[in-house]
Amino acid sequence: MPTSTSAPSPITSRDNRWLKLFRMALRGGFPTESGSVGVEGVRLVQEALTSGCKIEAILFSESGERHRSRLAPLISRPEIAFPILKTTDRLFEGIADTEHPQGIAALVLPRPAQLDDLFSVPEGKSSPLVVVLAGVQDPGNVGTILRTAAAFGATGAVTSATGQSGTASPFSPKALRSSAGAALHLPVVHGATLAILLTQFKLNNISTVATCVHDGSGAHAPVAPWEIDWCQPIALLVGNEGAGLPEDVVHSADARIHIPLERQVESLNAAAAASVLFYEAFRQRHRD
Amino acid sequence: MPTSTSAPSPITSRDNRWLKLFRMALRGGFPTESGSVGVEGVRLVQEALTSGCKIEAILFSESGERHRSRLAPLISRPEIAFPILKTTDRLFEGIADTEHPQGIAALVLPRPAQLDDLFSVPEGKSSPLVVVLAGVQDPGNVGTILRTAAAFGATGAVTSATGQSGTASPFSPKALRSSAGAALHLPVVHGATLAILLTQFKLNNISTVATCVHDGSGAHAPVAPWEIDWCQPIALLVGNEGAGLPEDVVHSADARIHIPLERQVESLNAAAAASVLFYEAFRQRHRD
Repeated sequence: MPTSTSAPSPITSRDNRWLKLFRMALRGGFPTESGSVGVEGVRLVQEALTSGCKIEAILFSESGERHRSRLAPLISRPEIAFPILKTTDRLFEGIADTEHPQGIAALVLPRPAQLDDLFSVPEGKSSPLVVVLAGVQDPGNVGTILRTAAAFGATGAVTSATGQSGTASPFSPKALRSSAGAALHLPVVHGATLAILLTQFKLNNISTVATCVHDGSGAHAPVAPWEIDWCQPIALLVGNEGAGLPEDVVHSADARIHIPLERQVESLNAAAAASVLFYEAFRQRHRD
Repeated sequence: MPTSTSAPSPITSRDNRWLKLFRMALRGGFPTESGSVGVEGVRLVQEALTSGCKIEAILFSESGERHRSRLAPLISRPEIAFPILKTTDRLFEGIADTEHPQGIAALVLPRPAQLDDLFSVPEGKSSPLVVVLAGVQDPGNVGTILRTAAAFGATGAVTSATGQSGTASPFSPKALRSSAGAALHLPVVHGATLAILLTQFKLNNISTVATCVHDGSGAHAPVAPWEIDWCQPIALLVGNEGAGLPEDVVHSADARIHIPLERQVESLNAAAAASVLFYEAFRQRHRD
């Protein structure tokens, strides 16, 4: 039986079991039966290999072989237990989700996080900073928000549906691309119920901050990002691109936040707004 | 001669002079001979109509007519001097740059700004905050940066080339879409030389701040965004997506800035980085 580091003969049939799995995960965008998701391209495969997630298989096309040396330190160890497969460029194009595939892909088993994981923080971090995506429909936005969150030190993420809309999976090929693989590193709880979440945050002394698309007045008027104390444990709730968060969630949150803009007609897209808020949290947590 | 508010008969020949102009400006992405650029969709046409820029013509498709009522206050005045044209859905699809056109477009003459315009500020603004795009190649990034700049109160923008790369036109259909029309409102100086710019900023007591992709040390080490005094007159220099700003520009700037991130492997895309910096300027200018 050949070891994973030997060079296997290329897969040349499109009915090969592995190719079917890769096709479903990449082009189809669905997890495989075992729960693996597909990532494509040198950078994402590298992220997957260093994420600590279980790798089910790696696939090179013939022209993708040129990237093997860059990944060698990660895949050429004797203890590597997953198969390293090879196929033709033509067959690789048939399974890829991108227009100009780099010829390297992996099947990765995301590490499912539990809600409890979000209430403690890793060594060296100040306090929990969790982002809750509630009805963010665009996979690109989901990915970019997770990427920005991870870059500015968020400790975890939750995806959740609202009555009106679901949140795109953070593990689809498009979301993984936009997140530059952040969803494989950051603990992500997938598909929690908003009501349960809000109760759990309260029980664990995590302040909930609702993002508001519009300004307002009165007792529930939103404040500017710099008026919030981001050093406390915080869960930032981000809503649907068009409709925002459901009214009742906005009202029951501990605070409401609105990014004031110079021109009222202007708005920021969801990802730009999220960068600004995570930056503000990071600034406050690091300014001293 | 029919007035602009009467309903003209639809243009049915693809060789019509107006259709050719719209096709060149929208699908082609080039300004017309008179310097007009094309904008498409209700929101952008509305932005164009309220920008104060000269409108050369407006074009509805048959199904685009349903948006006419929304624009009526802007186009149904007797003093309107530009033609309001109509064509078939099929011909409109042939000139449009988008996949599912809304059936409304305009030819607009951007108001060219002069460098001098950037050194004074409009009534009510604190002090100049100018963004210089030096070698930003992606039209989507150029548009998003201008949109964010305008939203956070930038007073003007300059596009400039570096030795390595040019900056995408802020007036191409893609950049205008990403900017949500900001390039029509914000004074934009197009195609200035970096060396001249830097001299002019110095002569006008505007501090130049170079954005750095990498951290560093020594006398020229970049500082965090919150360590800069953004209340002074500032020109923020943003470089190429991959290569950043040319070394000599980084060194000759009055200050260098780097957005510190939690994980060194993470990076922000150009537009997210720009949002964060304009937000910081806005925060400092408005916190009291």
